[in-house]
Amino acid sequence: MEIRYDGRKGDIGGPFIGTLHWDAELEGPRPGVLVAPAFRGRAQFEEQRAQELAALGYIGFAIDYYGQGWSTTDPTEAHAAKARLDADRATLAARMVAAFEALKAQDLVDAERTAAIGYCFGGKAVLDLAREGVDIGGVATFHGILDRAETAPEMKIIADVLVMHGWDDPLAKPESVLAFGREMTERGAKWQLHAYGNTGHAFTNPAAKPGAQPGFGFDVKATARSWRALVDFLAEVLR
Amino acid sequence: MEIRYDGRKGDIGGPFIGTLHWDAELEGPRPGVLVAPAFRGRAQFEEQRAQELAALGYIGFAIDYYGQGWSTTDPTEAHAAKARLDADRATLAARMVAAFEALKAQDLVDAERTAAIGYCFGGKAVLDLAREGVDIGGVATFHGILDRAETAPEMKIIADVLVMHGWDDPLAKPESVLAFGREMTERGAKWQLHAYGNTGHAFTNPAAKPGAQPGFGFDVKATARSWRALVDFLAEVLR
Repeated sequence: MEIRYDGRKGDIGGPFIGTLHWDAELEGPRPGVLVAPAFRGRAQFEEQRAQELAALGYIGFAIDYYGQGWSTTDPTEAHAAKARLDADRATLAARMVAAFEALKAQDLVDAERTAAIGYCFGGKAVLDLAREGVDIGGVATFHGILDRAETAPEMKIIADVLVMHGWDDPLAKPESVLAFGREMTERGAKWQLHAYGNTGHAFTNPAAKPGAQPGFGFDVKATARSWRALVDFLAEVLR
Repeated sequence: MEIRYDGRKGDIGGPFIGTLHWDAELEGPRPGVLVAPAFRGRAQFEEQRAQELAALGYIGFAIDYYGQGWSTTDPTEAHAAKARLDADRATLAARMVAAFEALKAQDLVDAERTAAIGYCFGGKAVLDLAREGVDIGGVATFHGILDRAETAPEMKIIADVLVMHGWDDPLAKPESVLAFGREMTERGAKWQLHAYGNTGHAFTNPAAKPGAQPGFGFDVKATARSWRALVDFLAEVLR
């Protein structure tokens, strides 16, 4: 089901359009899991992940951080859109908070039990949501970008954080992993990081042809391992 | 069952004494998992892990790298014994190969399906086994020490490697993690590392009182998460 929701006050980029997925055979409110898309915007890939989360008994909510449900298959356009939003982390964070509020407002969602997952730039987006100090059970990233948001408030991170990371990812180099560890530790986050060796950026994306671009590529084993880790993580934080 | 086995030629420290554990209700050969003890030597803790591995359908083999089944509850004695062996990595590696050969020689063990796990200095020991290039399915460490063995041969690491690591561990600092990532990548290992934030050395050991020593301490969540990760890992590499 399509869900239209507003941004926070002053955000002229809205409305935002997400899609909600659930298992119609279940009854009553259940935990909600937000899915933040990779930098091309919400597409089939993220819908599928939200559908799989629904099949696991959660409410899956594939969100939109660009506005109007915008997405593109053109990498140049996607890079430009991502760069604009990445240069304004306060807006990114505000849009993530708005999406999180929209998830919690759904009748089917148990607002006390929520989590968020994100891919690539969407990984940064869900980390930025956690960095706002919101009361969310867990935040998990797949090949997410890890750099600190200078605009984030200096407060404790409440969410449990799981980062699933390809060690060869040029967008999150080992030094970035170290800085992330320092940040999470300083901010009191309950965090963990699963690093996969010989694995690059976009490892969950079957369209990322290994070898086409150094440090990028689909990896079926890292995909399977990371999804398994996510399923365990959600079971733990959404009790 | 107690298993006495010899070291490699020229090792005057033997014989070595391990214990073998299996589920007597199962029939026929099954995968074998070597358990390398923490620096105090094989004790109740490692026997229990080997028994749990037996309950999962494997053969658990708690080994001895000091010789004569030596162990101690005295930390000063343990540190001294560990320091002697740590200063002679070639002997440590040779003893691990001898233990691995002893495991494979057991009638109950399917020698084609083997793995090794280790705790603390035992983590280093099983990594050193992998560094010898032996044909073993998987090697996993809990708060293991990661530094490279200068005496190891420069050959491909065949084992799948899983490192479960407390990020605050003073015995394996972040720089050591980075160096380990470089080493494993260079040597072609199929490796992964699970880092647990706010977690120190000895996180699986209930006797390690949190706060007694900075950077050390039992952590029940990291214990549960790491054991779950191990069970998944063994299922994957021992098919």
